[in-house]
Amino acid sequence: MRIPFEEVQSRLADVLRGQGFGEARAELCARLFAETTCDGVYSHGVNRFARFVAMVRNGSVDPVAEPRVVARFGAMERWDGQRGPGNLNAWAAMARAVALSGEHGIGCVAMAHTNHWMRGGTYGWQAAEADVIGMCWTNTMPNVPPWGGVDAAIGNNPLVIAVPRAKGHVVLDMAMSQFSYGALESYRKRGELLPVDGGFDGEGNLTRDPAAIERSQRLLPVGYWKGSGLAVVLDMMAAMTSLGNATCAIANDPLRETGLSQMFVAIDPRVLGDEARMEQIADEVVDSLHRSRAAEEGKPVRYPGENMVRLREENRRLGLPLEETVWEGILNM
Amino acid sequence: MRIPFEEVQSRLADVLRGQGFGEARAELCARLFAETTCDGVYSHGVNRFARFVAMVRNGSVDPVAEPRVVARFGAMERWDGQRGPGNLNAWAAMARAVALSGEHGIGCVAMAHTNHWMRGGTYGWQAAEADVIGMCWTNTMPNVPPWGGVDAAIGNNPLVIAVPRAKGHVVLDMAMSQFSYGALESYRKRGELLPVDGGFDGEGNLTRDPAAIERSQRLLPVGYWKGSGLAVVLDMMAAMTSLGNATCAIANDPLRETGLSQMFVAIDPRVLGDEARMEQIADEVVDSLHRSRAAEEGKPVRYPGENMVRLREENRRLGLPLEETVWEGILNM
Repeated sequence: MRIPFEEVQSRLADVLRGQGFGEARAELCARLFAETTCDGVYSHGVNRFARFVAMVRNGSVDPVAEPRVVARFGAMERWDGQRGPGNLNAWAAMARAVALSGEHGIGCVAMAHTNHWMRGGTYGWQAAEADVIGMCWTNTMPNVPPWGGVDAAIGNNPLVIAVPRAKGHVVLDMAMSQFSYGALESYRKRGELLPVDGGFDGEGNLTRDPAAIERSQRLLPVGYWKGSGLAVVLDMMAAMTSLGNATCAIANDPLRETGLSQMFVAIDPRVLGDEARMEQIADEVVDSLHRSRAAEEGKPVRYPGENMVRLREENRRLGLPLEETVWEGILNM
Repeated sequence: MRIPFEEVQSRLADVLRGQGFGEARAELCARLFAETTCDGVYSHGVNRFARFVAMVRNGSVDPVAEPRVVARFGAMERWDGQRGPGNLNAWAAMARAVALSGEHGIGCVAMAHTNHWMRGGTYGWQAAEADVIGMCWTNTMPNVPPWGGVDAAIGNNPLVIAVPRAKGHVVLDMAMSQFSYGALESYRKRGELLPVDGGFDGEGNLTRDPAAIERSQRLLPVGYWKGSGLAVVLDMMAAMTSLGNATCAIANDPLRETGLSQMFVAIDPRVLGDEARMEQIADEVVDSLHRSRAAEEGKPVRYPGENMVRLREENRRLGLPLEETVWEGILNM
């Protein structure tokens, strides 16, 4: 079914007000959920709202907590997220990083004790809409085995990098596992193999069988040893700078995954001058991708975030695509 | 054969002086080459020295050019590398980023028109030795097809992230292709398959056969679509901020690969206080990796850079392992 964007946002905001969210915070939190679904990131939008509300109810997310500055020095700040709603905390932190980049060229906010930020790309788009480069990353509960290991000891720690561009921002939003558990479930339900290896089976062999990976719980890091190493250093940077929890100190329970550490960096190259040339360079990169020969006919090479814009327009026009059970669940909250 | 570190450095410095390098620059440039081999990154150390000298001789690298500040604002600077030696330029840029991080908490230098920095990890170790977090990346000539494409249109754009730690720095140094051409060659010469898929064969199928990938020239990006996207945004950030060349504007010729764009970011969380807790967090992460069960007996999980320290000590003690032809080539220069 398709429900108009405004109707979805308005209903989510009602539910949040009922959970103790103030007016403006309920509106922003609801908008970010609706926009995530609108952009086609269905796993982290409206589909995830029920779990989010459950975490407000079980006390993992404090609906009235606001992030607090703990220390500041020059272009850098350390914040305590006080276990407030992850998307509101992240939005505030990126907004501050953007402001710092205007003052210093580059700005950084490291935030401890926050919650799942839902779709990381949101804060990349936020920076790009403010015409600056945004980089942010979060740690997560342990959900991926490090390279060479069997047990989940690293997070899938999404990394977001956004580059502003007048003709369409370039936004990368990548987790450090090749596939999420949500993706494995989708492939299994459709009876499909993964397009590439996604983890190990019970015998320790790489496999494209989603069910075998769900059983072994051994997701594959992006690029094998490389993504495993990247997850480790992203975790260390965020936890050390914010003085928050590293992945190893976070509860391995989707409904109690709280106290995360995140980092938000904004870079405003415009302070150095020659914005017109910057824009040309961005277009040259995009054009070179569009010019390159496609491996499969009819499937041109795309830049990160390119497909999202089309989907966003379509979902805005036609309404957000929602499963009936999901929408009814929200209407009955 | 094994040649003592000091003897190698001294001979390389002699050669560089003969190519017009000043005294101090010859010593530093030679030391960085020798240290790279000492750390076990043989592809980018002494083995690459002849190619470096060839690029000085053909004019791609200007031995006397020093990097120049073009613009500065707060914690950020734009530099012109003036096609000087890539490792000297990168060393100077990271040193400046480290200094900026002391003044502002975070600092950034974006450098245009520089040359191949040889081993990127060098500048990560440099930041970590200065007790700050270092992040840097470079673009390269087009040498990897973007995901969904056939022709090399993106670079393998190495990304380096270093986290200081008293008991051993954690240093990630990863290129955006799963394997380099140098690695493919080594596997082929040993008659071995790659341990995992490394690219496409002539029919467009993923393969572990190094020779097939050398023929097709279709290296695989790390994590398929993910590493391809990461290479694109790293390239855009470096080229746009420095106003330098993007990968698409760099000559696709190993001996004429010049005019690269690079970015150096240093973060000094100590300015926010509580260094002791930061150190504890770093150790907790490392301990959690060491505690995790190994997939293969006798092969414990390692953090990025961990094996390098052992190799460094061994090569310092026993002398740098060099192929006879390489060392003789250098003696005859």
